[in-house]
Amino acid sequence: MAGIVVQKFERTPLAVVDGLAAAGVATVHEAQGRTGLLAPHMRPIYAGARIAGNAVTISAPPGDNWMVHVAIEQLREGDILVLAPTSPCVDGYFGDLLATSAMARGCRGLVIDAGVRDVRDLTEMGFPVWSKAVFAQGTVKATLGSVNVPVVCAGAAIRPGDAIVADDDGVCVVERERAEEVLAKAQMREAAEQDKRRRLAAGELGLDIYDMRGKLEQLGLKYV
Amino acid sequence: MAGIVVQKFERTPLAVVDGLAAAGVATVHEAQGRTGLLAPHMRPIYAGARIAGNAVTISAPPGDNWMVHVAIEQLREGDILVLAPTSPCVDGYFGDLLATSAMARGCRGLVIDAGVRDVRDLTEMGFPVWSKAVFAQGTVKATLGSVNVPVVCAGAAIRPGDAIVADDDGVCVVERERAEEVLAKAQMREAAEQDKRRRLAAGELGLDIYDMRGKLEQLGLKYV
Amino acid sequence: MAGIVVQKFERTPLAVVDGLAAAGVATVHEAQGRTGLLAPHMRPIYAGARIAGNAVTISAPPGDNWMVHVAIEQLREGDILVLAPTSPCVDGYFGDLLATSAMARGCRGLVIDAGVRDVRDLTEMGFPVWSKAVFAQGTVKATLGSVNVPVVCAGAAIRPGDAIVADDDGVCVVERERAEEVLAKAQMREAAEQDKRRRLAAGELGLDIYDMRGKLEQLGLKYV
Amino acid sequence: MAGIVVQKFERTPLAVVDGLAAAGVATVHEAQGRTGLLAPHMRPIYAGARIAGNAVTISAPPGDNWMVHVAIEQLREGDILVLAPTSPCVDGYFGDLLATSAMARGCRGLVIDAGVRDVRDLTEMGFPVWSKAVFAQGTVKATLGSVNVPVVCAGAAIRPGDAIVADDDGVCVVERERAEEVLAKAQMREAAEQDKRRRLAAGELGLDIYDMRGKLEQLGLKYV
Amino acid sequence: MAGIVVQKFERTPLAVVDGLAAAGVATVHEAQGRTGLLAPHMRPIYAGARIAGNAVTISAPPGDNWMVHVAIEQLREGDILVLAPTSPCVDGYFGDLLATSAMARGCRGLVIDAGVRDVRDLTEMGFPVWSKAVFAQGTVKATLGSVNVPVVCAGAAIRPGDAIVADDDGVCVVERERAEEVLAKAQMREAAEQDKRRRLAAGELGLDIYDMRGKLEQLGLKYV
Amino acid sequence: MAGIVVQKFERTPLAVVDGLAAAGVATVHEAQGRTGLLAPHMRPIYAGARIAGNAVTISAPPGDNWMVHVAIEQLREGDILVLAPTSPCVDGYFGDLLATSAMARGCRGLVIDAGVRDVRDLTEMGFPVWSKAVFAQGTVKATLGSVNVPVVCAGAAIRPGDAIVADDDGVCVVERERAEEVLAKAQMREAAEQDKRRRLAAGELGLDIYDMRGKLEQLGLKYV
Repeated sequence: MAGIVVQKFERTPLAVVDGLAAAGVATVHEAQGRTGLLAPHMRPIYAGARIAGNAVTISAPPGDNWMVHVAIEQLREGDILVLAPTSPCVDGYFGDLLATSAMARGCRGLVIDAGVRDVRDLTEMGFPVWSKAVFAQGTVKATLGSVNVPVVCAGAAIRPGDAIVADDDGVCVVERERAEEVLAKAQMREAAEQDKRRRLAAGELGLDIYDMRGKLEQLGLKYV
Repeated sequence: MAGIVVQKFERTPLAVVDGLAAAGVATVHEAQGRTGLLAPHMRPIYAGARIAGNAVTISAPPGDNWMVHVAIEQLREGDILVLAPTSPCVDGYFGDLLATSAMARGCRGLVIDAGVRDVRDLTEMGFPVWSKAVFAQGTVKATLGSVNVPVVCAGAAIRPGDAIVADDDGVCVVERERAEEVLAKAQMREAAEQDKRRRLAAGELGLDIYDMRGKLEQLGLKYV
Repeated sequence: MAGIVVQKFERTPLAVVDGLAAAGVATVHEAQGRTGLLAPHMRPIYAGARIAGNAVTISAPPGDNWMVHVAIEQLREGDILVLAPTSPCVDGYFGDLLATSAMARGCRGLVIDAGVRDVRDLTEMGFPVWSKAVFAQGTVKATLGSVNVPVVCAGAAIRPGDAIVADDDGVCVVERERAEEVLAKAQMREAAEQDKRRRLAAGELGLDIYDMRGKLEQLGLKYV
Repeated sequence: MAGIVVQKFERTPLAVVDGLAAAGVATVHEAQGRTGLLAPHMRPIYAGARIAGNAVTISAPPGDNWMVHVAIEQLREGDILVLAPTSPCVDGYFGDLLATSAMARGCRGLVIDAGVRDVRDLTEMGFPVWSKAVFAQGTVKATLGSVNVPVVCAGAAIRPGDAIVADDDGVCVVERERAEEVLAKAQMREAAEQDKRRRLAAGELGLDIYDMRGKLEQLGLKYV
Repeated sequence: MAGIVVQKFERTPLAVVDGLAAAGVATVHEAQGRTGLLAPHMRPIYAGARIAGNAVTISAPPGDNWMVHVAIEQLREGDILVLAPTSPCVDGYFGDLLATSAMARGCRGLVIDAGVRDVRDLTEMGFPVWSKAVFAQGTVKATLGSVNVPVVCAGAAIRPGDAIVADDDGVCVVERERAEEVLAKAQMREAAEQDKRRRLAAGELGLDIYDMRGKLEQLGLKYV
Repeated sequence: MAGIVVQKFERTPLAVVDGLAAAGVATVHEAQGRTGLLAPHMRPIYAGARIAGNAVTISAPPGDNWMVHVAIEQLREGDILVLAPTSPCVDGYFGDLLATSAMARGCRGLVIDAGVRDVRDLTEMGFPVWSKAVFAQGTVKATLGSVNVPVVCAGAAIRPGDAIVADDDGVCVVERERAEEVLAKAQMREAAEQDKRRRLAAGELGLDIYDMRGKLEQLGLKYV
């Protein structure tokens, strides 16, 4: 089933994508009903990045980064590379040369359920990566994978053109068809949180703001 | 056994607690006989924080942060929230809204053997967290746990009012009853280390300062 | 077999060692045929350090740092301490006092397949450490190990006097006998990368620069 | 998005399913192009079981097994329960009472990316389970999940009605639409292996049977 | 704080202990309010053992089994050794010689949050062990620990004389003071399950037996 | 550095090897000074096997089992295949066809720091395997590795012709040059244990047999 490069697929509009980036992973995840998170082992190589973009997906054999080169040609402005190895692997599929190439094509970052290397250079270049590992181990270019097919990456199903949101909290995928709706909900959520934040900062309790005391008592919570 | 909120318990005096913070985790741990450390998977969300405070403990079901709201009402100036899930869990029980509320009640930080989210906001707010994971996964408010009961958190037994010390080296608990004695020992230890540090910096060897050569020879160490 | 301190062994010339540091882990690893990497769980305690030096090796029992004191006496300018426990262990074998002593003897850093503590102090002192864990757990001085014997550290075979390179990507060992040759290859590799980086930044594709299209087609890659 | 029970979906014909069981996980996985495997942490609670069936999927909150009861009503002869928690969890969602109920509805086994308990009873009952953990930890019935929606279970995307194959090698999913084709390929593969097995047993080498020597030489393999 | 052997403590009556063994881990854990379970990494070295006994606790340094010898002298008929290392360790603290000695003193088994070895011999001897690892790595006898002090073992707080229950589902501790009450609840629970098991086997659904349909509907569960 | 097959190397005499098998992993490990153990994640696919043999080593890329075919030609009666991937990998490099071939060449088993599949067949064939994982994931034949070069496998340095001992306790390597001496020590150790076992079974205490009481008292052990 490997050996396919899908060249045409719909992307999420960048206006929507950029709105999701502003909302951030935790809010987007809540706004879409607490789905879409990648596993917590996906960590950023440096703190502070907050991006969103359209997924260009890569299914690659363990220890073989050939398909990354193939995928880079498919990149458009605002895309994010998403690499899922076909079996668990921590090799360093990606480094500063590939990042240079990806950035030249408008790529905003990399989400990889495997390893990355040259992280000092990537940090200096401002190319954010969320990965399972930092590992200098080199890869070969010997076996085909696929580009822009549906993948499962770090436990989340991702299709090309789905919106990816990533920040210090991790990575979240939003289905393209739902992205606009999710953005709207995320923005409403953020607005609602503003008021709560103000009240909590003033010393009001969540117990009162969310009216929890009755329910807790009813379930039998005892103060002793 | 769940469903209890203990409202009254003795706390460690803040003067003692603050002294422990100044000594730091490694020194406090040594001073009390190498006990009380939480497991090494408890890592700070940002570098450089060094705090101590009185434990307000939370026993919470997996994926359910209701008791955090209950616990926040019990906070006093100088407290630290300590959350132990009733089974292994990495969900994000705590984010910037709860931190806002906890800070408004005088809370100095959170120690959680589970996940935390909104870490960029928490970093900007200066609210330190030591956790098992960073994960945006949301939680529910459906099942009771308990507040201020004894818990085992990341392998350490912690009671409400015990002193918690946390810095870049991890987290350590000091039993309230022993806290004053431990502080005294920690301060003596620090004083003693000052002299050793000076001598080591000057090139003297630990082998000589600690008079180890004879014992090593006696055990059969051979230089070849 | 424990209980031996080897005092004389050949070291890699510092000029070669310094060249390897400049090349960095990923390049050195590639230059020597993708060998010598330590496992990816070896992470730096702070970002940005890039060092190389001669290995002074320590084989130590779990939870016993006596041999570190013995090893420090064997240090020369430009050395790096490499500690491999005889069984898996995350205890904090090393802290700021030992670092003070090691620095006074010209030591450039520590590579330890176990734990380290006092990481805030070590960071302030500029003493870099690559470790499996940060853990304040103290150790004893009761059982012999060995110094400057061959060890397996984090999955890599290391002999005293081998060159160690360490940066944000991890840690790599270069056999002393091959170090000069590896440095030469690393420098050639870096030179070659300069040109590729420029072309990739200009938008050229790896597919073309590395002439991959024919081979991919031949293996059956299909664009759809 | 939780709170849905899909009652109607197409299942893979049992004749096909039973053929897949006979072929086993490794052969089926190969026959469908090396896809569909669940992660290797999915282990059987006892050795020797080899089953296949139609997936009845459960998306359940961490530590909450309410949806298992809902799913059991949806079971038909030849089904396999597939449970994916909405966040990582090892609690014991399933024990001998639920197995008794599931068996009474024709269920052939359970695949659960979480924990299971009562494993001695389940073994005696001959109800096979592939799980991430064995853990007696109880669960609550407080929060909705969904039944027969697409899930990602242990890294594999599974829809209701897909064929699940499980044996001592692990668990594999076959998309319903491809099941017949995959079965045919699996059976061809098995037939081909029979001859190879005979030749290998007689001492012939894979190097010769698969005609590898030329290619190895061409790539530069050196015998020394 | 190490270096103490407590010789006198109350034990749980063996009649109660034996009742708990008959009930098994999952039932006992439920009967005492879902507390007391050790972490799921504690696995039996062979299937089928189901024991209970009084805890004789050992706090031992990493890689040092001296205190096991000390503890064996403290054993009485019906005791179970419980070993918690003072820091994470997988060394093989215990093998067939120690088991021979422990069995001669009436010991029923070992619960160890570390490694065990000679598992083939232990299996043949019928001496059950629940451990974190099987590992032949030898240990030293150089540093004191303590015997019969409170420990945290695999995440559970255990005091000498507490009842330990262990079977294929893992290990559970019951506080001595509560053991009789927990046994009574466990037996009631078992009796109640008999009827449910019969009804479920006859095809009745948990949804009906536990009267769940109304509550599910009220929470919004939708059948589609 | 990959791409080499070493055809000639000295092997450990089979008489010595067979003696080591009889002694078992724990005894051999002790007899050679507590060295040579592979990491505890190396577990047997079935209980009860106890073998020893000469290492035929394989260094293989992740997910590529080509070199296994090459290695099988190098096998002689009494050999054990030892596979170390060049980076962490759990793919199923080896199954029943390769085992058939290896057995036909006199191979006694496989030690692999990666995955294995067809474990039910391997069990029935009586071909023992110690592995990091059981995983059906298939591998490719695309990239060269090496055969009979020194490797680090699961943390232990192994050269071709070294003796491998494996049983339910794990795997141990004995350097060829030391094998005879280690065997002699192992046999002496076993003889000595016989007497101790008898005494311990009769109720004597290790505290007395090993004369530990004085030393424990001197170190400050207190009975309370």
